[in-house]
Amino acid sequence: MAQKPSIPKGTRDFGPAETAGRNYIFDTVKSVFRTYGYMPIETPAMENLGTLLGKYGDEGDKLLFRILNSGDAFSGVDMEAFRSEDGSLNGKALSMKLCEKGLRYDLTVPFARFVVQHQNEISFPFKRYQIQPVWRADRPQKGRYREFYQCDADVIGSRSLLNELELVQIVDRVFSLFGISVLVKINNRKVLTGLAEIAGFPDKVVDITVAIDKIDKTGIEAVEAEMREKGLTDEAIAVIEPVLQLKGSNDEKIARMKELLSGASASAIVSDTGLKGIAELEELFGLINAAGISQEVELDLSLARGLNYYTGAIFEVKAKDFQIGSICGGGRYDNLTGIFGLPDMSGVGISFGADRIYDVLKGLDKFPKEVTSSTRLLFANMGADEMKYILPVAGSLRESGIPCEIFADAAKLKKQFDYAARKSIPFISITGADEMAGGLVNLKNLETGEQISVSKDDIAGIRAFLEQ
Amino acid sequence: MAQKPSIPKGTRDFGPAETAGRNYIFDTVKSVFRTYGYMPIETPAMENLGTLLGKYGDEGDKLLFRILNSGDAFSGVDMEAFRSEDGSLNGKALSMKLCEKGLRYDLTVPFARFVVQHQNEISFPFKRYQIQPVWRADRPQKGRYREFYQCDADVIGSRSLLNELELVQIVDRVFSLFGISVLVKINNRKVLTGLAEIAGFPDKVVDITVAIDKIDKTGIEAVEAEMREKGLTDEAIAVIEPVLQLKGSNDEKIARMKELLSGASASAIVSDTGLKGIAELEELFGLINAAGISQEVELDLSLARGLNYYTGAIFEVKAKDFQIGSICGGGRYDNLTGIFGLPDMSGVGISFGADRIYDVLKGLDKFPKEVTSSTRLLFANMGADEMKYILPVAGSLRESGIPCEIFADAAKLKKQFDYAARKSIPFISITGADEMAGGLVNLKNLETGEQISVSKDDIAGIRAFLEQ
Repeated sequence: MAQKPSIPKGTRDFGPAETAGRNYIFDTVKSVFRTYGYMPIETPAMENLGTLLGKYGDEGDKLLFRILNSGDAFSGVDMEAFRSEDGSLNGKALSMKLCEKGLRYDLTVPFARFVVQHQNEISFPFKRYQIQPVWRADRPQKGRYREFYQCDADVIGSRSLLNELELVQIVDRVFSLFGISVLVKINNRKVLTGLAEIAGFPDKVVDITVAIDKIDKTGIEAVEAEMREKGLTDEAIAVIEPVLQLKGSNDEKIARMKELLSGASASAIVSDTGLKGIAELEELFGLINAAGISQEVELDLSLARGLNYYTGAIFEVKAKDFQIGSICGGGRYDNLTGIFGLPDMSGVGISFGADRIYDVLKGLDKFPKEVTSSTRLLFANMGADEMKYILPVAGSLRESGIPCEIFADAAKLKKQFDYAARKSIPFISITGADEMAGGLVNLKNLETGEQISVSKDDIAGIRAFLEQ
Repeated sequence: MAQKPSIPKGTRDFGPAETAGRNYIFDTVKSVFRTYGYMPIETPAMENLGTLLGKYGDEGDKLLFRILNSGDAFSGVDMEAFRSEDGSLNGKALSMKLCEKGLRYDLTVPFARFVVQHQNEISFPFKRYQIQPVWRADRPQKGRYREFYQCDADVIGSRSLLNELELVQIVDRVFSLFGISVLVKINNRKVLTGLAEIAGFPDKVVDITVAIDKIDKTGIEAVEAEMREKGLTDEAIAVIEPVLQLKGSNDEKIARMKELLSGASASAIVSDTGLKGIAELEELFGLINAAGISQEVELDLSLARGLNYYTGAIFEVKAKDFQIGSICGGGRYDNLTGIFGLPDMSGVGISFGADRIYDVLKGLDKFPKEVTSSTRLLFANMGADEMKYILPVAGSLRESGIPCEIFADAAKLKKQFDYAARKSIPFISITGADEMAGGLVNLKNLETGEQISVSKDDIAGIRAFLEQ
């Protein structure tokens, strides 16, 4: 009754090397989050559908994985009540009846739900990180999966721009620990709102943002075409277009944008919101200079980021030496928890893209060696007596933190060497009757061929050879 | 449009302290797994239903969470084809049509599927660990959840009892690191098979095992009653009952059981399978003595464990100083991967019960202090200039691994002290204009009240005060 085993499309198995590499990414990010006082939380994979629906737009609602109610989900359900006049079933209504729960689509909405639900146990400002998988019924394609991890840090309950600075510092530190050079792009949504205002189309800020968001992928012409399609005039585009291409230092860009938002553009319109955004950018860059950031930080006035809930600073991080989309992004939002009944909570957050960071580390060969090869020493199995002789030595090495294995069976040595090779184990011990008689342990460096014998009780000596 | 937020019944949110405590458990277990050469893998939350169905019995099939097919799941589905003669819908067949995927029920079946699917990439014996959530549509009750983590280590592709020993060593080391005294109970399924044979009911080994499994909860009388109900005779019970109550050292129990299985019982039947089990126990206890185990290990001939797939050694671990069920268990199985088309792969595995271990650590107050309090120092926010002055100091401390926070807003000091108290931050720095003028940083131990001023560049001096 053998079945050919497979997994659902768009999902992945992670073998030992991949899992170890991914854990290295998560552990590094966590360790940095923690030095800034961010604390971990976890929320359930399943949320009530009422929590998820309507938060990601119509398109997002369609991408939710729904869980069939347990027990007999169909018992007492009158199918006829869900039939349209043309005889077809109303799948949307029916799935609401049959499914009360869905898999989480991101970590942001569950975080907002968590904050509101537990507001009385939380001390604000609340700094939390969360590293868990999310699920989306997207059409699977290269680099897009139906299950993937998000790795988020958010602080909620403080409007201070120190929070934005700290997220930039976290990004700086994380990628420095990874040995990856990055460009941190920063912009401010209020400045984009101001841009829509001075272009004379304050009501089209979403259209403008959505169009600008594609500038990296499609280029300036396509962005202009899209804006025109959305009803923007040539005059409006003539105001917007030069801003997207502003050159110079961060300070120069800020100064020029301040002029434009103060009435120096062709429209002569003044945008108070835009100027508030400029003031925030000035303050944030002042803090960045005071803190000292080692990676490159750039004000990019064409940075838009698609998500509508951002209201202040927005960030995006790109690897400098590896061609891939953004590997980290985030921004400030002013009313995330309002939908769950807790208004006026401003927050700012950042999300690390673990899958892409994995590809960058792999592509640039930046994974530390010890991450993927875990076992340091294989004791060859030379028989039952030799195994018992070795057991306490292996035990002491493990207690001192050195991963080692005893080959489980007294198999042919070739097989045991093959096992060491396939598992990238760098040292082997072939300890037989001679060594036992002398109270010794044999050790061999499989790379250099160097071989020694050490007293079985000289754990420090054994360690020294293994750590060379 | 505020909604009252909640989560599905049987699921849990984990706040910062709980998540930190749980991560400590997982990290400790992982670190021990790794010293024995176990490597991590991860499998998707969703498996094809074909992979899951029929692996956990009829009862288990009912407890699977099924995922509604994405897109319009109902499009083209002829409901009438699923209607029984009495007009009701055949929910079982219909859910098979509407749902192709389910959430994993445990980590064992996905592991077997993984091994078969990736057999050509794996070097055997394959030692893997896996720490991921599983989902069961059980009726929620105290201590039973619909989402919970499993924390498993298995080695597959080796019959050597060294593997059993190593799992006992892992248990020993993990609970020693936790500072928990445990009793490790060991038995062997072949001995239980032998017991059924010498009782004269070789075909009732499952019934006998299921009955014996409850001895801890219901006592010997209830076990006897259940065996009688299943058709066992008084003579059979008279053979079984004394075995369950055997006293003495492990060696004495082994010796007595060997006699009984060799024909010394009232039935005078000899069980070759039982004697094979005894030989395995003798070998395993010999290895345990050679390795030296610090926790108590006991041969318990009444240990049965419910799962039918065990064929050799079985383990169970109980905390000695805390009243709770077993906190860890496992055993050897001979044909886990057969159902997926890969026969003759023997394996042995162990599973740590993270939820119960959490309760034991909490109940015995064994969580290390640094696990739950993460931030070491709060820099009070005395204004924008002071904040900029502090930034590089905080940055250096963080780079040296000390978690610290700068309060985001220049709020009233009372509010800032409250924040430190609620987050259990043990040190505060109130660095104002005077300290700035002198190039100093103020530091205060909130527990003792001790206060010092240190040069802002003397990071070692600051660390020394914080680490006292």
